[in-house]
Amino acid sequence: MPESALTAPNPRLFSFRAGAEGAWRIRAITPVRGDTLPPADRLDLISGEAGPAGEGDGLGAWTLRGVTSNERYVTNDEKRKLAAAQEGLGREAATCAALIPIKKSAAWWGLTQEQRRAVFEEQSRHTHIGLHYLPAIARRLHHCRDLATAEPFDFLTWFEFRPEDEPAFDRLLAELRKTPEWAHVERETDIRLIRG
Amino acid sequence: MPESALTAPNPRLFSFRAGAEGAWRIRAITPVRGDTLPPADRLDLISGEAGPAGEGDGLGAWTLRGVTSNERYVTNDEKRKLAAAQEGLGREAATCAALIPIKKSAAWWGLTQEQRRAVFEEQSRHTHIGLHYLPAIARRLHHCRDLATAEPFDFLTWFEFRPEDEPAFDRLLAELRKTPEWAHVERETDIRLIRG
Repeated sequence: MPESALTAPNPRLFSFRAGAEGAWRIRAITPVRGDTLPPADRLDLISGEAGPAGEGDGLGAWTLRGVTSNERYVTNDEKRKLAAAQEGLGREAATCAALIPIKKSAAWWGLTQEQRRAVFEEQSRHTHIGLHYLPAIARRLHHCRDLATAEPFDFLTWFEFRPEDEPAFDRLLAELRKTPEWAHVERETDIRLIRG
Repeated sequence: MPESALTAPNPRLFSFRAGAEGAWRIRAITPVRGDTLPPADRLDLISGEAGPAGEGDGLGAWTLRGVTSNERYVTNDEKRKLAAAQEGLGREAATCAALIPIKKSAAWWGLTQEQRRAVFEEQSRHTHIGLHYLPAIARRLHHCRDLATAEPFDFLTWFEFRPEDEPAFDRLLAELRKTPEWAHVERETDIRLIRG
């Protein structure tokens, strides 16, 4: 079979499809920086490629896609600390979720790896801050910037937590948004959801 | 317009389409490690998405795709040295080209950034070796691993040089293939081409 026939989805691809259906009910879509996303009732988190929006999905329907990938910034020591403290997605009690799509500036992407790491951790303590909120806040990071299509965001981060941990989640976001790293964020939307 | 309608190609996407047509004549396709690619007469380097292979493209037709992206391993000092010494693609006298698709191991991708950098440069001197061959060898690196489709390779590197610089190009490859970094290469194909 010729290589060009290999059109299976990347096994690390996830699609976030907003519309009339989906396992998660959208409570709020809040623009943090830049343009917001259209309102929708529900969101489905799909492993792989989502089909095109259907008739019943309404005008506001949108789909964002991203792939999980290799580590970009954590050291081996930080990776060990994260692995020891974090819990996975899909916990029964974690009925709240947030999807936070982010786009960073061209200047950020023009930096070398060591410059980005310095802003990310030495100046902003991104992983250090996040560690304080484990295991309550579970997360999965998806990358969009190197897809074959032009995407509106560079990253999609999906968070799951219990309802009583939402104030802690809000504090986590407030801490991160004050950091030097966030000066490089050009667009950010904060989508809150409830399962069921 | 809903975000889901944004299906423009990534402006950093390039497609390498092999078949009966194309600006480059394929001289040889040599498997270095793992499965080879099917033979084809010619190759086209297309900015953006290539259309599907046509009737006249022959049985061996294949297309590989990748996106140029941000720096992963070079330090700021190495980046400056590269920028000062390198020349761009499309030089009149550079009538020879090579396309070298590479896939690295799952173990490589499981390493942290600092571990990969240590193998790439401190142990293997990848950038240091490459600098010796500038400006004769021009190159552009394309990433495939984080596309939405499952791709047969992680990287596609495209090189252009004058015919008299091909022995130097062969020495560059021989030097790199002896490094610890190459222990992580699972599949590699070496495709040589002539313009026109």
